[in-house]
Amino acid sequence: MNKVVDGLPVAVDAMGGDKAPAEIVAGALQAARELEIPVLLIGDPKCLKDAEGQPGIQVEPAYEVVDMDEDPGRAVRTKRGSSVVRCAEAVRDGRASAMVSAGNTGAAMASALLRMGRLKGASRPAIATVIPVPGAAAQTLLLDSGANVECTPHMLVQFAQMGSALSTERFGTANPRVGLLSIGEEASKGNALVKEAHELLEGGAAGPQVHFIGNVEGRDVMTERVDVVVTDGFTGNVVLKTLEGAVRAVSGAVLGALTSTEEVKEAARAVMPALMPLAAQIDPDTYGGAILLGVNGVCVISHGSSSARAIVNAIKVARHAVDEKLVARLEDVLQPVGPQ
Amino acid sequence: MNKVVDGLPVAVDAMGGDKAPAEIVAGALQAARELEIPVLLIGDPKCLKDAEGQPGIQVEPAYEVVDMDEDPGRAVRTKRGSSVVRCAEAVRDGRASAMVSAGNTGAAMASALLRMGRLKGASRPAIATVIPVPGAAAQTLLLDSGANVECTPHMLVQFAQMGSALSTERFGTANPRVGLLSIGEEASKGNALVKEAHELLEGGAAGPQVHFIGNVEGRDVMTERVDVVVTDGFTGNVVLKTLEGAVRAVSGAVLGALTSTEEVKEAARAVMPALMPLAAQIDPDTYGGAILLGVNGVCVISHGSSSARAIVNAIKVARHAVDEKLVARLEDVLQPVGPQ
Repeated sequence: MNKVVDGLPVAVDAMGGDKAPAEIVAGALQAARELEIPVLLIGDPKCLKDAEGQPGIQVEPAYEVVDMDEDPGRAVRTKRGSSVVRCAEAVRDGRASAMVSAGNTGAAMASALLRMGRLKGASRPAIATVIPVPGAAAQTLLLDSGANVECTPHMLVQFAQMGSALSTERFGTANPRVGLLSIGEEASKGNALVKEAHELLEGGAAGPQVHFIGNVEGRDVMTERVDVVVTDGFTGNVVLKTLEGAVRAVSGAVLGALTSTEEVKEAARAVMPALMPLAAQIDPDTYGGAILLGVNGVCVISHGSSSARAIVNAIKVARHAVDEKLVARLEDVLQPVGPQ
Repeated sequence: MNKVVDGLPVAVDAMGGDKAPAEIVAGALQAARELEIPVLLIGDPKCLKDAEGQPGIQVEPAYEVVDMDEDPGRAVRTKRGSSVVRCAEAVRDGRASAMVSAGNTGAAMASALLRMGRLKGASRPAIATVIPVPGAAAQTLLLDSGANVECTPHMLVQFAQMGSALSTERFGTANPRVGLLSIGEEASKGNALVKEAHELLEGGAAGPQVHFIGNVEGRDVMTERVDVVVTDGFTGNVVLKTLEGAVRAVSGAVLGALTSTEEVKEAARAVMPALMPLAAQIDPDTYGGAILLGVNGVCVISHGSSSARAIVNAIKVARHAVDEKLVARLEDVLQPVGPQ
């Protein structure tokens, strides 16, 4: 027990998230103890007292907090001493290997972009989210899940490149299948953005490392048909939240039905153990949050209602990305395509 | 038994759909027999022999069929004698009160638009789809679900008007809550189209009959928070198929878990009756298909894999729309707003 944990710590925004700081600190402590991943906890020292001096934990004071509903751009400009900005600075300055925040998504993005800088070759950062595929070993990656409301076809090509590299890093998928989200499989289907992006991807604009399988539809996202789904940030965010809502509605209704009467409740006890692995698989806390791709460092954005378990998984995802050299992989895949 | 069914028949495209003509004819016969709704079955006479002479059933020959994957525009231009075109003509010519097709969606739309004509005041027809809300009495309407890939803000205002009228006709909802699909509740969130549409709707451009509640998100669609969700046809179609996929993935996984071992299967027998109403509620066959709004007649588009049960429900929906004067309601709500 209490083994020495090695390597640079993962910077964790102790103040970000609906359940901050309690659940965030608990998750950080658990990650250091159980996964032996060192953590740099950044936040109000008053909230971090219990964590101080624990094995694998460093603490760094930050006296400002960006609220969940604050304007991200303004917050990052005016609250230079906030925990989320300090996390990005820790990565920039080489005191941390990666950052994790469950706070204001826009503020985490802006902090990462402004402090770590843009990745060489990337026009715009994108948020890649893990979509659970019940029963499958590898999950689907969806990007952009909301960083860029308006996109150009060229941006979608870069999302294909970055998503492909992430799928390999994250799930070990060799030659991941990249699909373009549209409303029909034919190249002629979709809006102007999708049609132009299809032409570019079909023409090999993403390079030989990207295995483009053509258009995919909304119904393919939660299946094993595709590994990486590329779309603009507006559509991606709508899809992500639609999936969340649908999963919640159906699983809630199933649970409601199984507890509707005392008799059914009693009978359901015998089947609950069979349903538990599924419940874990569709729980977003299992996936440790989204990754911001296209910045010069690893930035994991966990959802606002993150529990300690979600934070443990986010730290694990961040550390995996560092160990597997995600940033170098992204830089490599973003190289311009074609004869130079 | 065999009561006389009254009123103009509903024209049914006997040849449209993956399970046509068998399931379509079976559904038509059942609607005539059990719901006492007269049906005009249009299709290849060879396929309609069993239906001929049945009470409440008229048969009309059509010797061409539009395939599921044919180009809709070309199909409607070149196959003037096809069953789907003849259905729209039956409505235009006053031989039928409404049409139902489970065939090529684009061909049904094009037939309705070209033969029945555009509704006075409507700039573009839109497809309104019923989204199940587990446990709720009224379901959510989503439009446009795919008729218009590119939309203007003005079109979204009309979708708000037409969706509102349909919600009242279909579910009896008084003062239905209309939400604009975006990626955040604030007016500042969304792409350019959504921001402009928000401004118009907020400013009352849809008229006093439309109760606009602001932006809604993907996670609200399957809840009781909103009655009508307005979006462009690209996003709407993606949302619809994403929901279908998610519902299928989760319910499939639940079923898989409940039949994973003989022991669980045995135990699950006791809880299955509690799950059956939910299964029916999330089954698209329950809702009888989408309605094409903005054409001068009632056109119900059932999904491609429609069973007899789906066709019965589609015929019921069509008849309800006729009885409740949906087209007149739409024309009324589409009146220009403001001082004349």
